[in-house]
Amino acid sequence: MTYCAGILVQQGLVMIADTRTNAGLDNISTYRKLHVIAQPGERVLAIAHAGNLSLSQSVMSLLHEGVENPDAAELDTIEKVPTMFRAAQLIGRAIRRVRATDFEGFEQAKLPFEVSMLFGGQIKGGPMRLYMIYSAGNFIECGQEAPFLQVGEHKYGKPILDRAVKFSTDVYDALKIGLISMDSTMRSNLGVGLPIDIALICRDSLEAELIHRVEAGEPYFHDLRERWSAALRAAHMNIPRPPYGVKG
Amino acid sequence: MTYCAGILVQQGLVMIADTRTNAGLDNISTYRKLHVIAQPGERVLAIAHAGNLSLSQSVMSLLHEGVENPDAAELDTIEKVPTMFRAAQLIGRAIRRVRATDFEGFEQAKLPFEVSMLFGGQIKGGPMRLYMIYSAGNFIECGQEAPFLQVGEHKYGKPILDRAVKFSTDVYDALKIGLISMDSTMRSNLGVGLPIDIALICRDSLEAELIHRVEAGEPYFHDLRERWSAALRAAHMNIPRPPYGVKG
Repeated sequence: MTYCAGILVQQGLVMIADTRTNAGLDNISTYRKLHVIAQPGERVLAIAHAGNLSLSQSVMSLLHEGVENPDAAELDTIEKVPTMFRAAQLIGRAIRRVRATDFEGFEQAKLPFEVSMLFGGQIKGGPMRLYMIYSAGNFIECGQEAPFLQVGEHKYGKPILDRAVKFSTDVYDALKIGLISMDSTMRSNLGVGLPIDIALICRDSLEAELIHRVEAGEPYFHDLRERWSAALRAAHMNIPRPPYGVKG
Repeated sequence: MTYCAGILVQQGLVMIADTRTNAGLDNISTYRKLHVIAQPGERVLAIAHAGNLSLSQSVMSLLHEGVENPDAAELDTIEKVPTMFRAAQLIGRAIRRVRATDFEGFEQAKLPFEVSMLFGGQIKGGPMRLYMIYSAGNFIECGQEAPFLQVGEHKYGKPILDRAVKFSTDVYDALKIGLISMDSTMRSNLGVGLPIDIALICRDSLEAELIHRVEAGEPYFHDLRERWSAALRAAHMNIPRPPYGVKG
């Protein structure tokens, strides 16, 4: 299992992903699922992936090695594609290429062909964008009304995002909320676990402001978990007792 | 879809269930999914159900009409069974009875045989208990370490229960937390909706302290939603900004 979230606010983009992979409960490993591709001043891109790890890794390799473009002679690569929209299309094409080679084998092994990606960032001359790309290669773009997207085990961590994130939220507050959303997920699903990778990119900076791995036992993250739990306990205390009548 | 939660704390039991049923997105109705069976001074029982409504209703009917008991001549009914454990067994037997009649037809229609129930309360002479009964008729009992059980769409509403409910929590605080858990679920899943039915039973009282239906637009519930969202927004403001270094 996996949980990744991307939050796109006015000031910039936060991407967050756990690192746990499992083939059954008795075969658990740590793999990086958040990748940052940075050419400072030219482009800064972040990709987070959920689903079958072999599929995600194949897609990532194709993005660097290049995928045929039906409208051009040269191969498209994630380092050279000229706009965010074209880059999202490229990721979709890479997923379809992997499907063409792997799908039959997956079907024979009765494995679901599952891969989904969050892709955010900015390329010089264009706006900052955040996309979610599905296993069919199609994709949607994040809007301002619900300024976040999620892949993987998304349900436990969604209520806090629904309630606390707006497009006007400070980007470091968005990072804190993303960490709380990740923590809520880790508490409920053992398939999502530390360390956590995070990236923060400010709009129009064309470089990563922050790239960090939160390891188990890190004091700040521990403190964040404790403060959040304490705040929730205090919050419901301040809500008046229900006035509901006795015996309906 | 459905969401039901039962919370068993030192002072007593809270049961909460939504009322939305749907056969596809274009066929939505309101049905009661929380039932209280009360004989004050003798027994007070609450049953909440998720899954296929026809199965749940058949089980409820059988509990009142009676199910054969292999060890007795008379039929067992929910009004007469002598202990909570025996009552949970009775519900399991009723589910198996319904399975015996309905399963083949469900299979032919490619419908999943899904029904699960929360069953809590107290019978004179015995302790207060809370059980979750699965579609195979087996069941588990709620413990003090995680003093709640859920059926239906449980993921969105679980983080708040995980963080805020302890066995020592005041029973009216447990009710508020249950309403917040329900609200978190309704915001994310359209298949869970108002009105909400709630029941609150104090330990050893052998009667219902509170039975209430929260209708759309009710001022208290609206205020609770607003206060909770405001408290969450304030809570993350009080967490310090991450000290994470720049450019890893």
